[in-house]
Amino acid sequence: MSLERIGEGTRLSHAVVHAGVVYLAGQVADDLTLDVAGQTTQILAKIDRLLTAAKSDRSRLLSATIWLTDIGSKDAMNAVWDGWIAGVGPPARACVEAGLGPGVRVEIAAVAACV
Amino acid sequence: MSLERIGEGTRLSHAVVHAGVVYLAGQVADDLTLDVAGQTTQILAKIDRLLTAAKSDRSRLLSATIWLTDIGSKDAMNAVWDGWIAGVGPPARACVEAGLGPGVRVEIAAVAACV
Amino acid sequence: MSLERIGEGTRLSHAVVHAGVVYLAGQVADDLTLDVAGQTTQILAKIDRLLTAAKSDRSRLLSATIWLTDIGSKDAMNAVWDGWIAGVGPPARACVEAGLGPGVRVEIAAVAACV
Repeated sequence: MSLERIGEGTRLSHAVVHAGVVYLAGQVADDLTLDVAGQTTQILAKIDRLLTAAKSDRSRLLSATIWLTDIGSKDAMNAVWDGWIAGVGPPARACVEAGLGPGVRVEIAAVAACV
Repeated sequence: MSLERIGEGTRLSHAVVHAGVVYLAGQVADDLTLDVAGQTTQILAKIDRLLTAAKSDRSRLLSATIWLTDIGSKDAMNAVWDGWIAGVGPPARACVEAGLGPGVRVEIAAVAACV
Repeated sequence: MSLERIGEGTRLSHAVVHAGVVYLAGQVADDLTLDVAGQTTQILAKIDRLLTAAKSDRSRLLSATIWLTDIGSKDAMNAVWDGWIAGVGPPARACVEAGLGPGVRVEIAAVAACV
């Protein structure tokens, strides 16, 4: 069965589609001067775009993994997440603290079903 | 193909089933005063219940991700894990250290095949 | 649908195949005296062997998760990764810092499509 790559670079692809499932790379914000809420907003917009390109959408997320550089910022991230996922069935999710690149406060990867 | 959500909340679902595969959210213990072995025991019981609800079971696990707040507690977690998985084919697994919520010593997410 | 386990132990399997997808356990180097580049080289050779055993190969990777004990070693890991993945379509990827076992500088898990 063939693979479709979206946002393919030399190091990673931002999404790979196989057998009706899309695997998203860990997404980070473009503006790393933003706080965790601002970075989360940018990331979720990127995820929306990648899911659209893969013929999926946020209502078809299967799982999401969220890394925060400070687990204490979970409430601030969740405030944005909760608004984004409101009214659609949410995915399985894990949220843990991890060191990330300079300025990166949050990173989100996900797996979703395509239509 | 339709999605089935188990333990669906407003922020996350505890399990999402799609195309014969179930994705489990990161599970944590209910009693966070327990040590890592006690928390692991509670988590694995939760995973058993979620797998049953998804028409799967521990013998059909594909992968598991285990986060420990102290990688030094890996042996204590493994002692419980090894007993739980004994006699069934174990999943692919990764176990790493990560900051988790207050009192949380271990969190486990998994992917499994449904019957 | 049946599961095929590769490198099955009592605690984990190094790969589990289901429905045309192979899930790899987090791989670590055999020689933990090596630096991050040397450990990455050993890990990627292990991944190649596991993918071959699962009737897959590095061009069919869907996602990879990379844990580094020091996120500052990302460039050194990437130098090896980039050579390994050159010329084939790369997977979705996430790379974060996490505590690992003694001497372990890098660990890589992955999901791939089988032929």
